[in-house]
Amino acid sequence: MSLMLAEIAEQPAALERTIAEERAKIAKLGNLLKARDIHLIVLVARGSSDNAALFGRYLLEITTGIPVSLSAPSVHTIYGARLKLDHALVVGVSQSGEGEDINRVLESARRSGAYTIGITNEPGSSMTDLVHETLQTHGGRERSVAATKTFTGQMLLFYMLAAELAQSPAPFSYEAIPQLVAGALEQKPAILELVQRYVFMENCVVVGRGLAYANAYELALKLMETCYVVAERFSSADFLHGPVAMVERHFPVILFAPPGVMLPGVKSLIERLRELHADTLAITSDIDAASMCTRSIVMSREIDEFLAPIPYIVPGQLFAALLAEAKGLDPDAPRSLSKVTRTL
Amino acid sequence: MSLMLAEIAEQPAALERTIAEERAKIAKLGNLLKARDIHLIVLVARGSSDNAALFGRYLLEITTGIPVSLSAPSVHTIYGARLKLDHALVVGVSQSGEGEDINRVLESARRSGAYTIGITNEPGSSMTDLVHETLQTHGGRERSVAATKTFTGQMLLFYMLAAELAQSPAPFSYEAIPQLVAGALEQKPAILELVQRYVFMENCVVVGRGLAYANAYELALKLMETCYVVAERFSSADFLHGPVAMVERHFPVILFAPPGVMLPGVKSLIERLRELHADTLAITSDIDAASMCTRSIVMSREIDEFLAPIPYIVPGQLFAALLAEAKGLDPDAPRSLSKVTRTL
Repeated sequence: MSLMLAEIAEQPAALERTIAEERAKIAKLGNLLKARDIHLIVLVARGSSDNAALFGRYLLEITTGIPVSLSAPSVHTIYGARLKLDHALVVGVSQSGEGEDINRVLESARRSGAYTIGITNEPGSSMTDLVHETLQTHGGRERSVAATKTFTGQMLLFYMLAAELAQSPAPFSYEAIPQLVAGALEQKPAILELVQRYVFMENCVVVGRGLAYANAYELALKLMETCYVVAERFSSADFLHGPVAMVERHFPVILFAPPGVMLPGVKSLIERLRELHADTLAITSDIDAASMCTRSIVMSREIDEFLAPIPYIVPGQLFAALLAEAKGLDPDAPRSLSKVTRTL
Repeated sequence: MSLMLAEIAEQPAALERTIAEERAKIAKLGNLLKARDIHLIVLVARGSSDNAALFGRYLLEITTGIPVSLSAPSVHTIYGARLKLDHALVVGVSQSGEGEDINRVLESARRSGAYTIGITNEPGSSMTDLVHETLQTHGGRERSVAATKTFTGQMLLFYMLAAELAQSPAPFSYEAIPQLVAGALEQKPAILELVQRYVFMENCVVVGRGLAYANAYELALKLMETCYVVAERFSSADFLHGPVAMVERHFPVILFAPPGVMLPGVKSLIERLRELHADTLAITSDIDAASMCTRSIVMSREIDEFLAPIPYIVPGQLFAALLAEAKGLDPDAPRSLSKVTRTL
């Protein structure tokens, strides 16, 4: 079994550990941040960590009402701008804690008066020395180049932070997540069969929206790095503003269609794609959405809108890891990649 | 000649008009905004307008030091979140001024205490009734489905706004832009020949970074909507965090490589792509970068780093419009698209 598949399977235990180990620290942090009167949250990351940040952006804005900005690191590291960041919370996200650009943004933000948090899987990393507080994903060392258990761990920490910063009680109980992930892992045999159909897929579009938007980015990234599929990622709204023109008969589109306020829009898109004779794959618990698509991965109906993002990425991770193997590729050794990428 | 090509050619005159007509209003607006002590700028848009906003994000953060957030409209329109936006400037960008989601975010932001600006090409549109101030792109009616002259007009208005909000004198004089665009249009015969080589291109990656990052998004969008090419867009940094694994022998990568602080990083990426035997096309004034690529579009050396984004997108627009025709497609009538897209 590949390291990637092994690490995908470790996620329920890793998520449990993160809840147990970080809960008390985050409760204290929440009180401290409320007292500081935060006006702006800035998230800074690259790669899969940036996809976790994209999820964090939606969750934090929706539950706390505080505006969130996804940082453009080069503004700080290359253009040398000094942003006004008093009353800002700046959160860096890096699996290794050694992303030089992320760390430089955190340093610069701290000098500009921001409160800084680092989210990392490596407790002894450089990032932990730079920030006011570290939140750790307790995944154990991640050896696969393609991030899986650290990605869901980062998402979980955003839930825990959002729960503390929410003005009214948060609309979710993140404690259920590890068990929902365990349930999602049971899809593995079905996905092993399913991927055979996609062995010759060379490009595709992945769609998600709102809280599930980051899932589209993450599945597309996994497909690019482990399967070498040219995978575009869009929200269903942006997709209709131009890129839908690419869709011809049999063009493959993968859609995240969890329950909730976004579902009607995603279903309208599925209808449109049917008219265009696209080849659609839905990850959904909605029987209707599933039956409208060429193929589907059917999720448990006990997963609600707010908890869907973590369990719904799991079949995506399995799909990428198993498709890579079906294509004769090694998901642990993507060509041209190493685990820590150095950029500014 | 297609409408798209005709409208590309109208850009110098349209940009001249926009400078002449909007300059006095923006100077007054700048004074008003300085007095309001803006802590945060939020930009909200879809499609090509969102690409102009992505450019505006870099330019505004670099020149004003005010943090910028690119809005996720669904947070407001579908999740119903009410963000804390006192001391915020919220700028909606919509060619038609009829984007319902953009307009609803502007309404909600105004109720939350933000100062609101609408950037539009249509002076009588719904957007103009909702906002405190309208900035107009004086492009004349845009009839091509693929936006060109309104896109560069929107970018120009971000220059004009940034010049007023800059703390020290802005590092650019936008008055030169119309003439630089006129110069870039002279590339048309060379690009007409060049596109023949790309008639059978089915997918590609477009790379840009910093101030030129939005150009990568915009060229990719034009290639998707007019040529049906599956065109990914990345910053050179993000590209190295995973997606570079897709690159195999002859994989096409188009790179914006204007002069300035980003050029060394883009040139390192070009070297890396040479090792991977990718097929590269650079848009650049750097002789060295041009000679390292499979093909190049060589730009005038009088275009500096800060003014590059508008003239550098022009060969991209020409490339997409002429490639569509070379592929036997009508760039004015992309399948599945209409001029105004209704999404929430």
